[in-house]
Amino acid sequence: MENTKQIYADWAATAPLHPAAAEELRRWLENPVPANPSSVHLFGMHAADRLAAARKTLAEAAGWDGEITFVSGGTEGLALAVHSLVRRALDTGRNRVILSPLEHPAVKEAVAAFALPAGMRAEECAVLPDGTVDPADFASRLGNDVGFCCVMAVQNETGVIQPVDRLAVLTHGCGALLLSDAVQAAGHIPLPVGADVLVISGHKFGAPAGTGAVFHRIPLSPLQKGGGQERGYRGGTENLPGICAMAAAASRWGEPDWMADLRDRGEADFVRRMAAAGMAVQVTGAGIRRIGSVSHLIFPEGVLGETLVLACDLAGLAVSAGSACHSDSPEPSAALLAMGYTLSEAVRGVRLSFGFGTTEAEMEASYRILGEAAEKLCAVKMHKQS
Amino acid sequence: MENTKQIYADWAATAPLHPAAAEELRRWLENPVPANPSSVHLFGMHAADRLAAARKTLAEAAGWDGEITFVSGGTEGLALAVHSLVRRALDTGRNRVILSPLEHPAVKEAVAAFALPAGMRAEECAVLPDGTVDPADFASRLGNDVGFCCVMAVQNETGVIQPVDRLAVLTHGCGALLLSDAVQAAGHIPLPVGADVLVISGHKFGAPAGTGAVFHRIPLSPLQKGGGQERGYRGGTENLPGICAMAAAASRWGEPDWMADLRDRGEADFVRRMAAAGMAVQVTGAGIRRIGSVSHLIFPEGVLGETLVLACDLAGLAVSAGSACHSDSPEPSAALLAMGYTLSEAVRGVRLSFGFGTTEAEMEASYRILGEAAEKLCAVKMHKQS
Repeated sequence: MENTKQIYADWAATAPLHPAAAEELRRWLENPVPANPSSVHLFGMHAADRLAAARKTLAEAAGWDGEITFVSGGTEGLALAVHSLVRRALDTGRNRVILSPLEHPAVKEAVAAFALPAGMRAEECAVLPDGTVDPADFASRLGNDVGFCCVMAVQNETGVIQPVDRLAVLTHGCGALLLSDAVQAAGHIPLPVGADVLVISGHKFGAPAGTGAVFHRIPLSPLQKGGGQERGYRGGTENLPGICAMAAAASRWGEPDWMADLRDRGEADFVRRMAAAGMAVQVTGAGIRRIGSVSHLIFPEGVLGETLVLACDLAGLAVSAGSACHSDSPEPSAALLAMGYTLSEAVRGVRLSFGFGTTEAEMEASYRILGEAAEKLCAVKMHKQS
Repeated sequence: MENTKQIYADWAATAPLHPAAAEELRRWLENPVPANPSSVHLFGMHAADRLAAARKTLAEAAGWDGEITFVSGGTEGLALAVHSLVRRALDTGRNRVILSPLEHPAVKEAVAAFALPAGMRAEECAVLPDGTVDPADFASRLGNDVGFCCVMAVQNETGVIQPVDRLAVLTHGCGALLLSDAVQAAGHIPLPVGADVLVISGHKFGAPAGTGAVFHRIPLSPLQKGGGQERGYRGGTENLPGICAMAAAASRWGEPDWMADLRDRGEADFVRRMAAAGMAVQVTGAGIRRIGSVSHLIFPEGVLGETLVLACDLAGLAVSAGSACHSDSPEPSAALLAMGYTLSEAVRGVRLSFGFGTTEAEMEASYRILGEAAEKLCAVKMHKQS
């Protein structure tokens, strides 16, 4: 395999398969029975039993006592959730939606696709400089005309944990519902079960790509119908092997998060070393509750995140710029802008993200390679200026 | 495994994994690298290469020169296709959709969800007694106000092949577009590439569940957006291992269909034997072009399809009633009703369906067990009446 010498520090983009999920898939490959849970014969009934068991395992792992609907991933789950919340809002005569500016494009696009054409108004709440939603601003926007709010559980670029359960109480106070995109939370922190709808994506925590789930306390309005699967909420033959592998990976969610301390030390060392080399590096969300696996760093002027990502890749380290870059000119991170960073700062972020398979040596090497790459870029810049 | 003694003759509901797909998944399990094709580092570029290769393999297998968008299955693909065709129709001032009454619920539900609320009118064309769409009736309904038509390539209950390429010519004659649900065609007959949009589902031909594709010559209007994947047509991290396994299974589509002769002989023997036992069994679509793997039989009065399915299951054979049963009272098959069968006949169908892993001995045993089960049910009925 051509990537074996590369260190993978982009787990927030996608994780490799968790051993528990791999074991489940291996068992299925050894005995690949036809498995359509809708069929009434023995094969179908056996498949339906496995589906029910996976749903139970996932509910237990999440501590969720509402319904669970299996989907193909986070983006589908969020589209289905927003579509359902819009219908619900319109049915109850509420025409406003409040979302945090930190939300993933999948949420923003779903609001644009389903809420706005239906005549709803969407507005973004304020974010504190530490990367969390401003609860006072959030509360001030609530009212009897608010149908639902969207606040993610963990921000995907910074790893900052949002006060979802607290915002849920505020939201419910005016009779509105709360959707929380928990894609980056699953496997790292307990899910914020105070929300009315949660969405997770399998491949972010070591389940196979093509799996995901919507946790919900309201009925869903399906986007795809057919054979009545998933209690009518989501048609289409269930991806049973994927779902069972997702449940297997979720059953390991309780594993202790050993990374936070190492990450904190790695960051502190890194900032010191960069300072010694004349580069002021900022740690995004420093001092705030973050998941232990993410390290988001903002580099000094002249060091573009995208360039640093490419330099790291050449040096054997896979990392990510805080934001996706869709064109030749780097796009600033909406999340960083919402936190009050300047346009110039918002294109200078790099995210290291680790996971269950990361070793201590890999974490240390990641900071080292990143530092060397940044120093080289800075040296090139100084040379050009001189 | 508790099902090993059961014969599986319900391949049209779902197929077990094709060896070529299993081999692909096994290779991935041996080396489960993180694979997000949107990432710009080496892991991501390698994933993007594999995605492109899979798309090429699938295009070659299908003989398709238009675009291919990967989705999670047939139901999602059909929802996305219908949603896109509705937008297109409205943009061009066309407000009618014609669909065959043979269509799968996934198509009918998508038309109900997207076309009707947008002000389009949907109408069903006529079907000939042999189970094919009536081309004269179809043609008579066409006009400049028709946006698109939906005709499946192979009917899922009867296996009857529809004259899609011929209907495509008629459809294009009035400037309308044709969607063909090719879920039951893939792997059995060449895909009707004269249609403008085709949809396939992986798990029907031995790819993993959770995979599917839309073949299209028009831009799609996405139902789920996010990171801009699939050229903006379908957001969400691609299910790369599943997609590669689907391409591997599709690369075997050319394998000869050896089943038709055996099926024809098996049916003929079956009908003779049942007649000798005093039961007149009808073969649906007899004498018409059908895929070689499906055998749909209508039993005489008193023998409900659903009951026969259960009796077969107890006797070690997994088959399906022609239609899904959603309640305690059997639901008549819409396809059979469209073909002119009576309500009473439309609840007396049973479908045997075979696939790449079926042996000759299994096919013979399937007809034998089905016959014995039917005779027993009939004997019980006679006994009750006497």
